[in-house]
Amino acid sequence: MTYNLLKGKRGIIFGALDHDSIAWKVAEKAHEEGAIFTLSNTPLALRFGEINELAEKTGAQIIMADATSVSDLEKVISQSMEILGGKIDFILHSIGMSMNVRKGKKYDELDYGFYHKTLDVSAISFHKMLQVARKLDAITEWGSVVALSYVAAQRTLFRYNDMADAKAMLESIARSFGYIYGRDKKIRVNTISQSPTLTTAGKGVKGIDSLIDFTERMSPLGNANAEECANYCVVMFSDLTKKVTMQNLYHDGGFSSMGMSLKAMKMYNKSIDQAIENGDFEFDD
Amino acid sequence: MTYNLLKGKRGIIFGALDHDSIAWKVAEKAHEEGAIFTLSNTPLALRFGEINELAEKTGAQIIMADATSVSDLEKVISQSMEILGGKIDFILHSIGMSMNVRKGKKYDELDYGFYHKTLDVSAISFHKMLQVARKLDAITEWGSVVALSYVAAQRTLFRYNDMADAKAMLESIARSFGYIYGRDKKIRVNTISQSPTLTTAGKGVKGIDSLIDFTERMSPLGNANAEECANYCVVMFSDLTKKVTMQNLYHDGGFSSMGMSLKAMKMYNKSIDQAIENGDFEFDD
Amino acid sequence: MTYNLLKGKRGIIFGALDHDSIAWKVAEKAHEEGAIFTLSNTPLALRFGEINELAEKTGAQIIMADATSVSDLEKVISQSMEILGGKIDFILHSIGMSMNVRKGKKYDELDYGFYHKTLDVSAISFHKMLQVARKLDAITEWGSVVALSYVAAQRTLFRYNDMADAKAMLESIARSFGYIYGRDKKIRVNTISQSPTLTTAGKGVKGIDSLIDFTERMSPLGNANAEECANYCVVMFSDLTKKVTMQNLYHDGGFSSMGMSLKAMKMYNKSIDQAIENGDFEFDD
Amino acid sequence: MTYNLLKGKRGIIFGALDHDSIAWKVAEKAHEEGAIFTLSNTPLALRFGEINELAEKTGAQIIMADATSVSDLEKVISQSMEILGGKIDFILHSIGMSMNVRKGKKYDELDYGFYHKTLDVSAISFHKMLQVARKLDAITEWGSVVALSYVAAQRTLFRYNDMADAKAMLESIARSFGYIYGRDKKIRVNTISQSPTLTTAGKGVKGIDSLIDFTERMSPLGNANAEECANYCVVMFSDLTKKVTMQNLYHDGGFSSMGMSLKAMKMYNKSIDQAIENGDFEFDD
Repeated sequence: MTYNLLKGKRGIIFGALDHDSIAWKVAEKAHEEGAIFTLSNTPLALRFGEINELAEKTGAQIIMADATSVSDLEKVISQSMEILGGKIDFILHSIGMSMNVRKGKKYDELDYGFYHKTLDVSAISFHKMLQVARKLDAITEWGSVVALSYVAAQRTLFRYNDMADAKAMLESIARSFGYIYGRDKKIRVNTISQSPTLTTAGKGVKGIDSLIDFTERMSPLGNANAEECANYCVVMFSDLTKKVTMQNLYHDGGFSSMGMSLKAMKMYNKSIDQAIENGDFEFDD
Repeated sequence: MTYNLLKGKRGIIFGALDHDSIAWKVAEKAHEEGAIFTLSNTPLALRFGEINELAEKTGAQIIMADATSVSDLEKVISQSMEILGGKIDFILHSIGMSMNVRKGKKYDELDYGFYHKTLDVSAISFHKMLQVARKLDAITEWGSVVALSYVAAQRTLFRYNDMADAKAMLESIARSFGYIYGRDKKIRVNTISQSPTLTTAGKGVKGIDSLIDFTERMSPLGNANAEECANYCVVMFSDLTKKVTMQNLYHDGGFSSMGMSLKAMKMYNKSIDQAIENGDFEFDD
Repeated sequence: MTYNLLKGKRGIIFGALDHDSIAWKVAEKAHEEGAIFTLSNTPLALRFGEINELAEKTGAQIIMADATSVSDLEKVISQSMEILGGKIDFILHSIGMSMNVRKGKKYDELDYGFYHKTLDVSAISFHKMLQVARKLDAITEWGSVVALSYVAAQRTLFRYNDMADAKAMLESIARSFGYIYGRDKKIRVNTISQSPTLTTAGKGVKGIDSLIDFTERMSPLGNANAEECANYCVVMFSDLTKKVTMQNLYHDGGFSSMGMSLKAMKMYNKSIDQAIENGDFEFDD
Repeated sequence: MTYNLLKGKRGIIFGALDHDSIAWKVAEKAHEEGAIFTLSNTPLALRFGEINELAEKTGAQIIMADATSVSDLEKVISQSMEILGGKIDFILHSIGMSMNVRKGKKYDELDYGFYHKTLDVSAISFHKMLQVARKLDAITEWGSVVALSYVAAQRTLFRYNDMADAKAMLESIARSFGYIYGRDKKIRVNTISQSPTLTTAGKGVKGIDSLIDFTERMSPLGNANAEECANYCVVMFSDLTKKVTMQNLYHDGGFSSMGMSLKAMKMYNKSIDQAIENGDFEFDD
């Protein structure tokens, strides 16, 4: 089912890697809804090659860029305007990376070079994107910018590590820049806080399966998947949400508003029963 | 511009009074987007007569009901299913009233009979609506229920009085029932926290003009109006937001994320300058 | 260890029932810290008789009252001033009750008479207390009023039922009245959101043990107990927190800021492993 | 009035500059309450010389350090343990600086070198402090760490600039590290979100007077001053708040829970009246 919600709109989508990427699904949906756009990712990501399939399918051109580089971003944004024939209506920021996570550095033994890198890639890139767009006056009035976030910005989840701080900062940037861009140019800036999602990046995180089982049972509607997230992004890019800005929007089947569900408690209880039975019950584990 | 976002969907809209009502705009938009629905309001509200114009324009039938009456709600919901030919896909709750406000009772001299009435009309009616719908199994899977709220649920605004408590409770009901209805029937329940709006009800509130001037200058995108709110409601009723539930969604041009804007501060400062000039500067007023 | 934090202060403590009550511990601590106070509870609660022991121990007089009755509250507050020899410095509201919970009415089959009663006892009683105190001008400048709340006001926990709505309303009352009482009389009003606690009331709730096991493992510092909560209340009654008002203060070992802890996940995982082993793994339970 | 709340406790206080500093007041109060501690600040700050007066008054030694330097922090923490004769019970982080603010770079024309510096000084220094303390096992069980924050972490205030993002990140660090430090060592980590305060740093900010006038009228209890903040810090360092962790605690006279006060609106209205009288009324300023 399509609605032409983005008919005639021009966009830039950062962060599509493969079929499992949320950005990939956003590109597909945006295309179905009538938008034209460019795709941008790092040279490394492009080397995997799958993104060419997406570009072909959606009629999009790919612009290589390191999103931490201001000059690369200038290139992406100015070229996008040329290619698409006008100012930009929407941007998706779906970028995040932590070397501390990758290298198994725990949060109390962070490498501070990596930490700065985490912030630079996962949060400051969003500011740079906005600042470059603002300087080039590249976004149309009532345009919409969305970055993907996670509930770890508000609540600590073991192993999410320094990405939590990066997401908190990302959401702050959305507010801080949303004020200026809204006041001066009527442009919206929001974040969508998505359920844990089994993207290629996500699959690498140790213990992600158990966490996803837990959030599935905690969320009344179950976890939101990448395609559903793409639908929500399209809605936020459309003209029907013009006065929503500086918000962090939970797209998570209700998880963020849950304290404890019956389903999750039942599963949890099985363990308690088993532990009691085994005489193996202590809090020090 | 229309998108057929609600094509084939059936709804019930509570609270349309006249052209300035948000519920009125929601009815118009929902009609444009392809929905069929019934309209419900109190006998008193219907006596004003304008709602007949809306009914005619949107092909909707009107069902009189006191939303605090469980039996009236049973009637509205079961008749709506009959009239519309099937289960309901969306419901709008746009109902609120405080006798304490109307009668000029301040928050530290509340009449407790009125207080219970405020809660009954403005919050508990939402629970009753949901409980009746649940009992009648009246809402389709992935259906969507929205109630209109206000930022007073989180932050105190002078003169909003006991309506603040009612809105806090309304949002709690959305979470509490959203859990159950999501888990059991995949139905979403959310509130939209709308900018102060000059509806017929709003116009009666003393000092509303100044407040709206302030929120207009505080909000980077300006206040959201009733029509824009209707667009957001349509989006929340559509299939594109299926995994959003138990949320309070700010639709306010950014107000809720603002601490102080330059525009509002400038206006405020003029007063300070004037007060200093007049030698009239104290904090005790 | 005592500090004389409440030396010379006069208070009223509502809701002490037996040794497990938080209000009981508050009375003990307040006494140790040099306060004098009265104790108030319902005739039914007093019939248990244990509170006489507390009264004796702390030199407090007991004043019977139904906290939903304005005239009873007038009696409590005016008699307390007489007994204690002056205006009141602090009040504790530790009152809550749901007949829907007691009678096993689920949240989607609420009895609306019970629902009003839940609100009246658990939330509106707090407003009445404040309104009566205000009318009698019974609280000293910079006095402090605290009500006990629970995280269910923000996040849904199965079986907490209509108490969640009551707590959301209670916290709203703290803000709404805190504004007026602060502005006019420099009096603080706050809520403390306490870990689940095995009080006599709590012990009756089905499944409370499992929930407490879960929150114990989720909270980095473990659950807060009644005595620790009493310490926090004393701090909020003292002169060292004069500018804290209209806040909901989490006293929960960190639970409210957690998304998932390693300890809780480990326990949860045991169940998953077991379920997989048993070939008994589905989401529909 | 003193209570011996910190009798026998050892601390480190970062960020005292002169009599107006919050950290200065914390040192005075902590001393009065029986604590011993060291003071740390940058060489530049120490050159002003006033801190010697504080050191003398409180019997504290000064340890020069750049809080962005891990080795400097190692020195401060290990020397403090030596000087004070044991592990540390409390730490205050009162450190923040933005070159973008100082150099008048607006938020949409940030210098990214400065931006990293803002984060490094104002937020990452807090992580480094905690990580070093953890590595040296320098904090006693049930110790308490507090960093000073500001409501700009949640809501945008014009001109607060990139410090808003730094404070959002600071509060995230408190949660992230609070989880680990709580779980492993029973140590609390919190932030206190303080009213705007006329410290030497604050005085330099353009328009700070008007903002402080606004927050004074918005806050039912008025702005909290540095001395009151010191009291709250002492409370958070004491044994009476052992189960409070991972929290951001507003100490602001109620500001954070206000939408609009009568006092602020009255002042604002004077401007509107004047503007209307002058025929000078537009939203584009």
